[in-house]
Amino acid sequence: MAVKVKRLAVLGSTGSIGRQTLDIVRAMPERFKVVGLAAGKNLALLLEQVKEFRPDFVSYTKLKGEKAGKHFSECDYLSLEEMACHTDADVVVIAVAGAAGLGATLAAAQAGKHIALANKESLVAAGEIITAAVKKNKARILPVDSEHSAIWQCLNGEKQAPRRIILTASGGPFRGYSLKQMEGITVAQALAHPSWKMGKKVTIDSATLMNKGLEVIEAHWLFSISVDDVAVLVHPQSIVHSLVEFVDGSVKAQLSCPDMRLPIQYALSYPDRLSNQALPKLDWNSFPDLVFEQPDMARFPCLRLGIEAGKKGGTYPAVLCAADEVAVDLFLAGRIKFTAIPDIIAGVLEKHTGVAHPSIDAIMSADSRARQAALKLAGSKS
Amino acid sequence: MAVKVKRLAVLGSTGSIGRQTLDIVRAMPERFKVVGLAAGKNLALLLEQVKEFRPDFVSYTKLKGEKAGKHFSECDYLSLEEMACHTDADVVVIAVAGAAGLGATLAAAQAGKHIALANKESLVAAGEIITAAVKKNKARILPVDSEHSAIWQCLNGEKQAPRRIILTASGGPFRGYSLKQMEGITVAQALAHPSWKMGKKVTIDSATLMNKGLEVIEAHWLFSISVDDVAVLVHPQSIVHSLVEFVDGSVKAQLSCPDMRLPIQYALSYPDRLSNQALPKLDWNSFPDLVFEQPDMARFPCLRLGIEAGKKGGTYPAVLCAADEVAVDLFLAGRIKFTAIPDIIAGVLEKHTGVAHPSIDAIMSADSRARQAALKLAGSKS
Repeated sequence: MAVKVKRLAVLGSTGSIGRQTLDIVRAMPERFKVVGLAAGKNLALLLEQVKEFRPDFVSYTKLKGEKAGKHFSECDYLSLEEMACHTDADVVVIAVAGAAGLGATLAAAQAGKHIALANKESLVAAGEIITAAVKKNKARILPVDSEHSAIWQCLNGEKQAPRRIILTASGGPFRGYSLKQMEGITVAQALAHPSWKMGKKVTIDSATLMNKGLEVIEAHWLFSISVDDVAVLVHPQSIVHSLVEFVDGSVKAQLSCPDMRLPIQYALSYPDRLSNQALPKLDWNSFPDLVFEQPDMARFPCLRLGIEAGKKGGTYPAVLCAADEVAVDLFLAGRIKFTAIPDIIAGVLEKHTGVAHPSIDAIMSADSRARQAALKLAGSKS
Repeated sequence: MAVKVKRLAVLGSTGSIGRQTLDIVRAMPERFKVVGLAAGKNLALLLEQVKEFRPDFVSYTKLKGEKAGKHFSECDYLSLEEMACHTDADVVVIAVAGAAGLGATLAAAQAGKHIALANKESLVAAGEIITAAVKKNKARILPVDSEHSAIWQCLNGEKQAPRRIILTASGGPFRGYSLKQMEGITVAQALAHPSWKMGKKVTIDSATLMNKGLEVIEAHWLFSISVDDVAVLVHPQSIVHSLVEFVDGSVKAQLSCPDMRLPIQYALSYPDRLSNQALPKLDWNSFPDLVFEQPDMARFPCLRLGIEAGKKGGTYPAVLCAADEVAVDLFLAGRIKFTAIPDIIAGVLEKHTGVAHPSIDAIMSADSRARQAALKLAGSKS
């Protein structure tokens, strides 16, 4: 039987998830073809990728006055949103970081695309709007986050909704730190994740456990489950990527080596699974003990802030995301302490007056005000 | 929507699995109705069960010259095989111990039944014949063994065959014993399983790890997988009931408290899952470390014997089962040492000349000769 080649538009192709997506395409050219590549500012790498994959269209952040097509004479230039809904793409990979992914995700949903979604912020900030657009236009979100991919795999073939979802968290590099030790955390320490190789933003979010807070909200939208029914367990080995509990008390878990290429490949190949020798396998001959423990909300207040924002809903999750993006940027720039990250986010959330069932405009406005508030708070703290 | 009540014939109703099956029916009378009950010699309990569940037909081992119906005036008397293929039964639960289940399993398969199969010996001894009959008559085997239920649950919704199945084993009560200590094991020690409450035969088989050897062969037939691709890992917590590895390196596992009622209920309720407050739930607040280790074939030769017999195929697995039944009986009767169990089985297997693709007659004949050989060997050892 001839296999249909899936045509991919990769948004955020020069980032960590984007580059690993292209690794999968490289390993299986008979399965996947890149028709579009979109990057932000890393034009050098984008040029290399265009040379190798020869997409039909390309997108990047243009300099003021710069003409489209200057760098990529053989490709059509599209905006991120245009690429996300282009008829030539079977699967749109949204691996753009932060709030920038929102417009593209929404455009892809409205165009009824299969969306391999690595950008959690768009679902966190605008989950109600995006899931409604997905439903209305018969689009489909294929989760790329390892935790949500795990849940998705465990729900495969199940007729009933889960009773509970248990997201696992590595606990990050500071799992054993005292509150006192956390005061002095450096950028280099925070970027040294014990089990995952990821982009900078998500690595810092993993160190604060904000990443897990965002994932609770993401799971809520992806799997139509109440935030109250999404639990978090710290699992330092990063082998069990999440668990699902069913109404009869049976639990399913998905396990694998911590390597993002597996959930990326699964999102691209779904409903098939493809053999790929490049992907690492668990070694049954020296299988580690699997440890699970409750997260410590006192030392990791970002997790609590995330869950609370998820429970409040409305514009709170968008404010959470925006304040977090600003705080993480400031930390990475050496301008605030690690422990100031949750302080700033908490301060911004506290001052926010939420809007229920917000429009995209209301979300963007809340986002922008939250960024200003975060910068202001950071100024008073630095 | 009205729910169709499933009508059950429970073969082996007075044994451990049979009684737990009736617990499930008791908890959900709106879902399940018992239409037939079959027991061996425990007439007292069978009488109680008949009073409570009022089945239409009943089966038990009659004394010589005893008239059918003597004890059960309101039920029709059927043979085990007649009950297994009765048109009034939607699901046939085969929880008869040992080789006695073979005829009933085959009859149910030939009648195209849904077979909730707890009797592993029938598949081990006659897997080729039974799976062919299942296929031909569009019957379906719903595995009741916790390990195979786990695999079945993990395969739910998957399009591709697994690359590998990893059966977990508690390791039994003698996991940490030295070879020297194993010489002196008593019946009471062997019957004290650390995590599961089961019948005597399977409890001893768990202590020798023969149970896991039989399960490797059972998995081979149930899931059409080579014996070489079925691995065994010792997992003393008995929480992960088995794992499935897919071609992309992703692994799924099923977890639950060690309680046979869950896999029994799942086999009965499939493809639904039913909420049942009586079933224990995993406690995420005090989740134990999950440990996995390779089994020690030197101290537990029964596992090696089981896997080898599975690889040889033909009549070898039937001989394995028969010799094991005799050896376990002799051990329970205090007539041989614990360590003589594998010695006897190995001796019987060694002398056996296998028949490939055996008929039921060839299997029964191999079974009967293996029993004689085992008794003879035991005599020379006691």
